[in-house]
Amino acid sequence: MSTVIAVETSDVRFPTSRELDGSDAMNPDPDYSAAYVRVVTDSEDGLEGHGFVFTIGRGNDVETAAISALTPYLLGRNAEELLADMGATWKLLAHDSQLRWLGPEKGVMHMAIGAVINALWDLKAKRARLPLWQLLATMTPEELVELVDFRYLTDALTPGEALDILRAAEPGRAERTARLLAEGYPGYTTTPGWLGYSDEKLARLAREAVADGFKQIKLKVGADLADDVRRLQTARAAVGPGIKIAVDANQRWGVAEAIEWITHLASFDIAWVEEPTSPDDILGHAAIARGVAPIPVATGEHVQNRIVFKQMLQADALQVLQIDAARVAGVNENVAILLLAAKFGVRVCPHAGGVGLCEAVQHLSMFDFVAVSGTKEGRMIEFVDHLHEHFVVPIDVHGGCYWPPSAPGGGSEMQGASIAEYTFPDGKFWRDDAQAQAAPGALTEAV
Amino acid sequence: MSTVIAVETSDVRFPTSRELDGSDAMNPDPDYSAAYVRVVTDSEDGLEGHGFVFTIGRGNDVETAAISALTPYLLGRNAEELLADMGATWKLLAHDSQLRWLGPEKGVMHMAIGAVINALWDLKAKRARLPLWQLLATMTPEELVELVDFRYLTDALTPGEALDILRAAEPGRAERTARLLAEGYPGYTTTPGWLGYSDEKLARLAREAVADGFKQIKLKVGADLADDVRRLQTARAAVGPGIKIAVDANQRWGVAEAIEWITHLASFDIAWVEEPTSPDDILGHAAIARGVAPIPVATGEHVQNRIVFKQMLQADALQVLQIDAARVAGVNENVAILLLAAKFGVRVCPHAGGVGLCEAVQHLSMFDFVAVSGTKEGRMIEFVDHLHEHFVVPIDVHGGCYWPPSAPGGGSEMQGASIAEYTFPDGKFWRDDAQAQAAPGALTEAV
Repeated sequence: MSTVIAVETSDVRFPTSRELDGSDAMNPDPDYSAAYVRVVTDSEDGLEGHGFVFTIGRGNDVETAAISALTPYLLGRNAEELLADMGATWKLLAHDSQLRWLGPEKGVMHMAIGAVINALWDLKAKRARLPLWQLLATMTPEELVELVDFRYLTDALTPGEALDILRAAEPGRAERTARLLAEGYPGYTTTPGWLGYSDEKLARLAREAVADGFKQIKLKVGADLADDVRRLQTARAAVGPGIKIAVDANQRWGVAEAIEWITHLASFDIAWVEEPTSPDDILGHAAIARGVAPIPVATGEHVQNRIVFKQMLQADALQVLQIDAARVAGVNENVAILLLAAKFGVRVCPHAGGVGLCEAVQHLSMFDFVAVSGTKEGRMIEFVDHLHEHFVVPIDVHGGCYWPPSAPGGGSEMQGASIAEYTFPDGKFWRDDAQAQAAPGALTEAV
Repeated sequence: MSTVIAVETSDVRFPTSRELDGSDAMNPDPDYSAAYVRVVTDSEDGLEGHGFVFTIGRGNDVETAAISALTPYLLGRNAEELLADMGATWKLLAHDSQLRWLGPEKGVMHMAIGAVINALWDLKAKRARLPLWQLLATMTPEELVELVDFRYLTDALTPGEALDILRAAEPGRAERTARLLAEGYPGYTTTPGWLGYSDEKLARLAREAVADGFKQIKLKVGADLADDVRRLQTARAAVGPGIKIAVDANQRWGVAEAIEWITHLASFDIAWVEEPTSPDDILGHAAIARGVAPIPVATGEHVQNRIVFKQMLQADALQVLQIDAARVAGVNENVAILLLAAKFGVRVCPHAGGVGLCEAVQHLSMFDFVAVSGTKEGRMIEFVDHLHEHFVVPIDVHGGCYWPPSAPGGGSEMQGASIAEYTFPDGKFWRDDAQAQAAPGALTEAV
């Protein structure tokens, strides 16, 4: 028996905007950040649950405020009870009627619920001495279905259908676990393709990606058509014909503009077009998908919840579903989304990068392979090579693949020293930075 | 020339849950609250801009944190510049790439932008010595179109089409202004219909509503079918056959359940069914609308932005569009939504009630009548009779109508004494309350 005795939040920000890592058509200067939560119990095992919301800088404090609004649900509570029935715990948080008003089920408050839920899963996996993917893959179909809130889903997926999907995958779990450990899970890399990079840097990084074993790279597009054409030529020349190239517009376009723009890029053999327009625009995505077929449309990193994913699938608005570990309300909702994707036969290629998204989301893809869809066909996890050093269990990516973590937990635990250094505005990095900015002759920057 | 010298937020909460005012199938115990913002300049006129996000209690502090995240865009800025081009000011706030990540364009952060934008409109109207509805109705079609962000809208509404709508309404503005002043704008009342009320109270309040001149009342439904049938019988008996009765499920149902439930209520001559399911479920609303036709489907109070409203209209998912003054990003986005509704020929019946929503949203309906749709046909503004005494310019509702405010501003300014009394947790009311709860023998309440 143990009790939750502390729920601690941290506003952690990395100054990534200074290198133009992560720059795209909508996000010119992201400072990759984590609204971080640590759940501490009085158990003698000393295990803690860690989770986060990924943001890109300003507003990270709004997310920590939202996480703090959830602490009354945890503090002083029996930890075993919270962890034993994670479906009930999810509903406890997501169905708070007063907090729900702030969404419902979207944006700051929903993402904060995700951080807390993921922290509890991290703790549950550590207590089980299993990596999260394996913990999930050892749960029975009945237990997994219990994790999902089917409200608003049953016109597309009933509990019975979800159970059928999971039961069908059950006999092959052991064999696929062995395959996963032997083969890894495919990745693709976005490292070469940021808008802020020069053509030389793009070409060099694209060649390195191929040498590293990746079968797909991704380029940011959407700011300037002529630039996009030139950068695609550069990338295609660098990687040769056998490597797939996806493009990502980060929501830059309207419907007609998206179709027109993509038409100009189609000759470069595009693997998919990602986030062509607003993530809220289900009908818009469907129109774009029809307009650019057979090029697949990919989206999901900003899709707010399972209800929008449901409609994207119902409307055939996406052909590649991109889950994100820290956008929806945590593992439970991603289990629902994986089940929806399996029901509709759509492949899942997670969004990652940012801070810790690779570390967290790999567990979901690996669980999906072992226990839900049962396939890696056409599937791969995004890989971006930065900030992994700040995590206690950084990803292991080599030979173009993610290799299954064996350490217990959900992957979201950050190094204590990194948290201390990059806490905003009082960590050492930001204090030093403020001093440097305040020094005579230093550049000052407006918001 | 004046400068913004203060942006002050307040967490104001009214203990409405104790009376079960506002109770419905999804929100059993709302404490109606305002995350309130006051924009102060150094102008000698002493005029201030006031705005708010309406919430129902917990999480109101998350909204004030989100509003605070926007203050760097206002503090120290030239007020005339901010107010002169409200389209540019809207984009300044809504397009901040780092804050946008927290939505995008939805939930806590988007609502906070709405509070700030509405506060600026309040200030702009006060400076013009006009009530907001009249300020908007004196702007040229070109100026009004400039307020709207057409990104993600042009597949349904282009700037040219918006201009055509506004130009077509221009010649009749003076005549309709005169009619509005002479006739008022129709209201309907939700006061009788809260779930927590006894049948006797329901019947009494329903009769009073008719005596007060209302032509429509609304009942909350969705918790228990037998109760709903009995309450509809009670209400119908109380008001007689000539009065419309709408029902509101507050998102309680899935698609099939909604259709089935409404079938059981159809014999009571339902004026509309409101929020039958998730506000994110465009395709679900469309299916329900087909399933319950000819009963109209109404939704909007939780529709997150213009992009979802666009799709609701494209999919014929709603027949009554319910704008809300404090859900989307303020006046600008509501102008976009009014234009979309006009383009699709759908009537607009605003959501109101809460804290200050009546005071704020009436301006938008009145502007719509004068300068956009040009009609009041089938349209009415929700009326709930509580908390108006806290506003500097409370609504004037009598004879079943809203009467146009003549005081300058947007209606969102709360009495200073009310803010002081109900600020959470340090205002007098909540301090006294905490003391009472801490007293020996007092009931304590878990979250």
